[in-house]
Amino acid sequence: METAYPASRFNAIDRLTALFSRLPGLGKKSAGRLVYHILDTDPSYARALGEELLAFHRAVKRCSVCGSYTESDPCSVCTDPSREPVLCVVERAQDVRVIEESREFRGRFHVLGGVIAPLEGINPENLSIGELVVRVRRERIREVILAMNPTVEGDTTALYIRKILKDTEVETTRLASGLPVGGDLEYADRLTLSRSFRGRVRM
Amino acid sequence: METAYPASRFNAIDRLTALFSRLPGLGKKSAGRLVYHILDTDPSYARALGEELLAFHRAVKRCSVCGSYTESDPCSVCTDPSREPVLCVVERAQDVRVIEESREFRGRFHVLGGVIAPLEGINPENLSIGELVVRVRRERIREVILAMNPTVEGDTTALYIRKILKDTEVETTRLASGLPVGGDLEYADRLTLSRSFRGRVRM
Repeated sequence: METAYPASRFNAIDRLTALFSRLPGLGKKSAGRLVYHILDTDPSYARALGEELLAFHRAVKRCSVCGSYTESDPCSVCTDPSREPVLCVVERAQDVRVIEESREFRGRFHVLGGVIAPLEGINPENLSIGELVVRVRRERIREVILAMNPTVEGDTTALYIRKILKDTEVETTRLASGLPVGGDLEYADRLTLSRSFRGRVRM
Repeated sequence: METAYPASRFNAIDRLTALFSRLPGLGKKSAGRLVYHILDTDPSYARALGEELLAFHRAVKRCSVCGSYTESDPCSVCTDPSREPVLCVVERAQDVRVIEESREFRGRFHVLGGVIAPLEGINPENLSIGELVVRVRRERIREVILAMNPTVEGDTTALYIRKILKDTEVETTRLASGLPVGGDLEYADRLTLSRSFRGRVRM
């Protein structure tokens, strides 16, 4: 509390503002704006949002097989017999949704839970790499697509997993990296440009 | 729902995303980012935010005297006998807080509930102008400070109220408008500059 007048006056407003401002991208000012918007809105909105939040962590779990967010465990991808024995390995659970919405992929997923970043204390044993190896064998996976972000950590993690999977029969691939569709050479950074040259395809 | 796969899969995530994206400044993407952040955060956060929201509209009311947001009615300003008989008239309830936090003003408030904007269907009778006149007489107000925003509608409303209050003894003033402190002449718009000239003060 930075204010001098009786704290009781704006208690509820302050508490809600403080809670909102803990969300990423919301400072104290923009959180306050949301709170006053909610005050000016029909109370049914705050009620709906409140009830949804109270039930949220009970409704959404992690799939015990692939680690993605789901409301039923195992998730609908893992229990879908039509899914091909191809594993797409992603960093975070939310990446699954982006790929699912692209409808580019008809295989299964494996959420690593991060990327190797020793400086941040994230080592291979903190990621679900052991589970990945078990799944590759048990589900007779024929290809593992490494879909980590094209960052230093993502590339390091991809190299590490390729090494780990060397003993298995599985084919290991990495998502193509290069110029984004609709992008402009002029605005491409040096690394992206370099990758797009190295990964150029015959046409 | 724009997605093709079973709706049940992301039901709770979609509902919460849809609710968040109704808040000002939050599109579907940024709302989704908040939802996944909440999923990755300790459940106690979602619980605290949910409970706060459920209780919010019951906790925060409008003061029946001045119209500002309060948890006890009448509000702590209206019941404070040390407040001077000066009324600061503001557009919206949240403006009260900004002025209170500036500690520049030791009088009372009156929330208009908007400004006159005929094109948007807001006419004088939709604002608490009648109540203002009653308060000026009943509370023996000696000055009314019109603190509406320095916009066309704010100025129109200020002129209208000055006219209405002409029959009373009360002095009517308007907040000074001009260059913001720390601002730069180079970036001032023409209207602001023009006001700062017209309102110049001897030194």
